[in-house]
Amino acid sequence: MKPRSIQVCLSPALLPLYAKENTIAVVIDIFRATSSMCYGLANGAQAIIPVAEIEECLAYAGQPACLLAAERNGEVVQGFDFGNSPFSYGAENVAGKTVVLTTTNGTRAIRECEGTKLIAIGSFLNITALSDWLKTQSSHVLLVCAGWKDHVCMEDTLFAGAVVSRIKTADSMLDDAARIADGLYQEAHLDIAGYLRNAGHATRMERLNLSRDIEFCLRQDLVSVVPIMRDGQLVCL
Amino acid sequence: MKPRSIQVCLSPALLPLYAKENTIAVVIDIFRATSSMCYGLANGAQAIIPVAEIEECLAYAGQPACLLAAERNGEVVQGFDFGNSPFSYGAENVAGKTVVLTTTNGTRAIRECEGTKLIAIGSFLNITALSDWLKTQSSHVLLVCAGWKDHVCMEDTLFAGAVVSRIKTADSMLDDAARIADGLYQEAHLDIAGYLRNAGHATRMERLNLSRDIEFCLRQDLVSVVPIMRDGQLVCL
Repeated sequence: MKPRSIQVCLSPALLPLYAKENTIAVVIDIFRATSSMCYGLANGAQAIIPVAEIEECLAYAGQPACLLAAERNGEVVQGFDFGNSPFSYGAENVAGKTVVLTTTNGTRAIRECEGTKLIAIGSFLNITALSDWLKTQSSHVLLVCAGWKDHVCMEDTLFAGAVVSRIKTADSMLDDAARIADGLYQEAHLDIAGYLRNAGHATRMERLNLSRDIEFCLRQDLVSVVPIMRDGQLVCL
Repeated sequence: MKPRSIQVCLSPALLPLYAKENTIAVVIDIFRATSSMCYGLANGAQAIIPVAEIEECLAYAGQPACLLAAERNGEVVQGFDFGNSPFSYGAENVAGKTVVLTTTNGTRAIRECEGTKLIAIGSFLNITALSDWLKTQSSHVLLVCAGWKDHVCMEDTLFAGAVVSRIKTADSMLDDAARIADGLYQEAHLDIAGYLRNAGHATRMERLNLSRDIEFCLRQDLVSVVPIMRDGQLVCL
């Protein structure tokens, strides 16, 4: 296989810097959008439709077998079925359903990756399935951290580093951000939860009593699906 | 001293996200603009005037005791006295002179920090002087990595982490980017040169036969000046 690039985009605000040709974009929003997407599809959701705005989400109201989910600033938006807590994405809620989801950071990042060859979804819940699949691909890889309102985020960067460390080979062309994420992961990998304890987003979630969600989103390999975008919907590869 | 924030802006493209009030911005362009600025002022340059564009630099032509320096993409721009190699900033060249300098990344980053309380200049050459001074200040600290054409850069991030590790206290409020830089520095600090060997900018400089410059810019505490901006000119604190 010829050398390919493995790059990390640390904030959606930096996405315009990256070429999209022959590139698989992996969108990462560990707390909690992409974790919940992986969990929901593994639990039998037919599809997840990521939309950027609350209004786009509401446009699906009344459609059969459709659940509307909206989160802003860590909380469920009033009037919606649920937000982006993974605990809402169990089989009892989502099996056979299509979830239309809008979140503060994650769904926006997905939309901004349009134009790449393929968009895939990553989280600790599916890290091995995702990495194993990326290893079989010859396209360039761009790991896109959703961050927090364009700020660089610890948990997304750490996860990007975890993927880089798994898929890189001697002839992969890493950009500096990929090396930084990889280096950080080497430093932190023995105690990821501890490393995240004081990080900005985790602190914000603790304040909202979401520590159970944090713990859940850091579980590795709970599922084996690789969500990808097809015709505007996330489905299993 | 009351708690203050220590933040790292990993790319000039992210600068609009940060508040500037009561904040000392430290601009970092290790290869090579800020290293050369520290070295030049330590060697008796009267001032260094950072300008964003080549045309602005040319406007100073013919002024007494004025040297014009311009670098683009790692090379001296044709017709200029010199670029941003630190070896051009020895006393024999710069003592008593004012250097007007424009570079690909560093001088632009400086201009974009306008509006902060104070702009200071950091490099490994003055890391202890800079850190010791920052420790005595109560303002917030924003470490601004110049990067490479808005891409996040290994050497600037590592240096930011080195400063964070030196100045943070138990009650400093670090943003995630500061934690990331600090974590990376912990991972890399025993062999910074080795860590940078494959990084993008260093590779680019090797191609231009600038490995002597790389080595020089990684020397710690060669000088004890802290350059700051005053009336549009960099001078010693």
